Amino acid sequence: MRIAVDMLGGDYAPDELVKGVSQALNDGHFVADELLLVGPKDRIESQLVQLGVDIAPEIIHTDTFIGGHEKPIEGMRSKPEASILQAVAACRDGRAGGIVAFGNTGAAVAASTIGLGLLPGVRRPGIAVTLIGANGKFVLLDAGANPSPKPEHLFHYGLMGAAFSRDMHGHSNPAIGLMNIGGEASKGSPLLQDVHQRFSQSPDLNFIGNVEGNELFSGAADVLVTDGFVGNMVLKVVEGFGERVIQVGREEGFDAQMKGVVRKLLGVSDFSEAGGANLLGVNGVVLIGHGRSKASSVLPALEVVRADIRAGVNQHIVESLQAHAQNS
Amino acid sequence: MRIAVDMLGGDYAPDELVKGVSQALNDGHFVADELLLVGPKDRIESQLVQLGVDIAPEIIHTDTFIGGHEKPIEGMRSKPEASILQAVAACRDGRAGGIVAFGNTGAAVAASTIGLGLLPGVRRPGIAVTLIGANGKFVLLDAGANPSPKPEHLFHYGLMGAAFSRDMHGHSNPAIGLMNIGGEASKGSPLLQDVHQRFSQSPDLNFIGNVEGNELFSGAADVLVTDGFVGNMVLKVVEGFGERVIQVGREEGFDAQMKGVVRKLLGVSDFSEAGGANLLGVNGVVLIGHGRSKASSVLPALEVVRADIRAGVNQHIVESLQAHAQNS
Repeated sequence: MRIAVDMLGGDYAPDELVKGVSQALNDGHFVADELLLVGPKDRIESQLVQLGVDIAPEIIHTDTFIGGHEKPIEGMRSKPEASILQAVAACRDGRAGGIVAFGNTGAAVAASTIGLGLLPGVRRPGIAVTLIGANGKFVLLDAGANPSPKPEHLFHYGLMGAAFSRDMHGHSNPAIGLMNIGGEASKGSPLLQDVHQRFSQSPDLNFIGNVEGNELFSGAADVLVTDGFVGNMVLKVVEGFGERVIQVGREEGFDAQMKGVVRKLLGVSDFSEAGGANLLGVNGVVLIGHGRSKASSVLPALEVVRADIRAGVNQHIVESLQAHAQNS
Repeated sequence: MRIAVDMLGGDYAPDELVKGVSQALNDGHFVADELLLVGPKDRIESQLVQLGVDIAPEIIHTDTFIGGHEKPIEGMRSKPEASILQAVAACRDGRAGGIVAFGNTGAAVAASTIGLGLLPGVRRPGIAVTLIGANGKFVLLDAGANPSPKPEHLFHYGLMGAAFSRDMHGHSNPAIGLMNIGGEASKGSPLLQDVHQRFSQSPDLNFIGNVEGNELFSGAADVLVTDGFVGNMVLKVVEGFGERVIQVGREEGFDAQMKGVVRKLLGVSDFSEAGGANLLGVNGVVLIGHGRSKASSVLPALEVVRADIRAGVNQHIVESLQAHAQNS
């Protein structure tokens, strides 16, 4: 199953993305037939030749894209030829099984949700970000798709995150935690208390209860559930703090080590280095990369999408939602 | 004006706090008459003598305290002799001008709010935490006192934080930012849009608009306004991430430098090293230290309270709230 790549997404498109695709092909990680590029055909083709690619992937031509600062819905209306929309259309029509999108996050979420629809039982998609804690990889969701969720959305995020954690992070019985500002079940808003109850009433889940902010990286939970406002805020605060740690480390003369440690922790979320965030709940595999992504982000992103498709994460999400329909 | 110290607050009370008090006295930073200790009189007195203190501060005797995991209101009802309540009473009666509380945060907030009352114009107190960014010290509030604020509460937090920033951090025209998950005024919940408008309609304020998580440590704003849920989450996430950075740094063999950098950034919020969080809006100066505080936290905490009293932060808060009453 091919992966559609929006070659016009992000700050360094298309040149850095072409470079990244060429590396994925030349190094033998992917073959041309596994990819479906969406972007300016002639430019991409000639660049791929220059970069030593013998057999180019199929290219859906477009010069149009929704910019990083455009409003998603307006962009989708005014630019029906936009690259993200064509990538989504290819996925909807079965020409591709997944999408890599480095551009406007809101546009990728909206286009995927509208174009692909939601998996059976899902009411709202969520952005799942992979980070690295004391127990290895863990997933935090939602990271910004749904800032004002209903209880069932958050419950579903736990189920979706657990399926993702099992298939992608190798946690066979992932510990699910609900981000809150206190440990007891009675803590937090009525919304969070409701969600806590739904998880507690699902004895097959490895629900560990509320998790406070200082436990995020402690390895306590493999799946951290929160609303899109808090998730986005937390993720960006950590990114900014990491940058600041590196900056102060540089001022004090030990740049490289500091950078190494921070990158190790943020590795997977630092989209310039690896992968991106998975949009869970849509009827397709969608990876949202950072707008600052360069060539080095392409291969990890493609590998995440391929692994997600092969593992059948979406099928497992559907099964889990069916099994827990009584608490949804 | 004396400072009342709850000597039974926190994990290492009273011994570490007695040690901290003795250092503050023996090193000449404070004289006995500036302090009013609340705790087990005989034990404290004999320890102070052992630690070489010639003239001991006045001590209000009590053996009772509200533990770290007790529910604040229940603790206040069942333990009228509790140390935090006596410290608050001393402040209310004019026997002290400020309080240092290392114990149960919720109890300190509730006891201060009920016992001291709120400053004229204030509707809800807020916990202000000082952190260090690229532009020096900045203040984040609310860090947990008010998880579900109304728009006027957040507007007041901006005014209170700005007064605090001017008096305590030396920012003459502090930049006020509203924490949000997007830069535009139209971003975020109706609540945040309302708050954005209140700030925008106050042209004398240096309101810089929405600030995203990655800008928290960038020096963009000197006062960061957010609700108590997000503020508490963000603060604890940063603490936990900082600990994790130190831990990974240790595994990779460069512990000391890493610790230095992280501590430099979290210095003021890392209550084991320095100070604590200021409860703003109550009719008194209240500093809430971390439950893990040891002797080294005492002097910085006392110095913050003394500086706050001397600067007249509360008077400036009242004036600012009066001046902006039309947007409150």
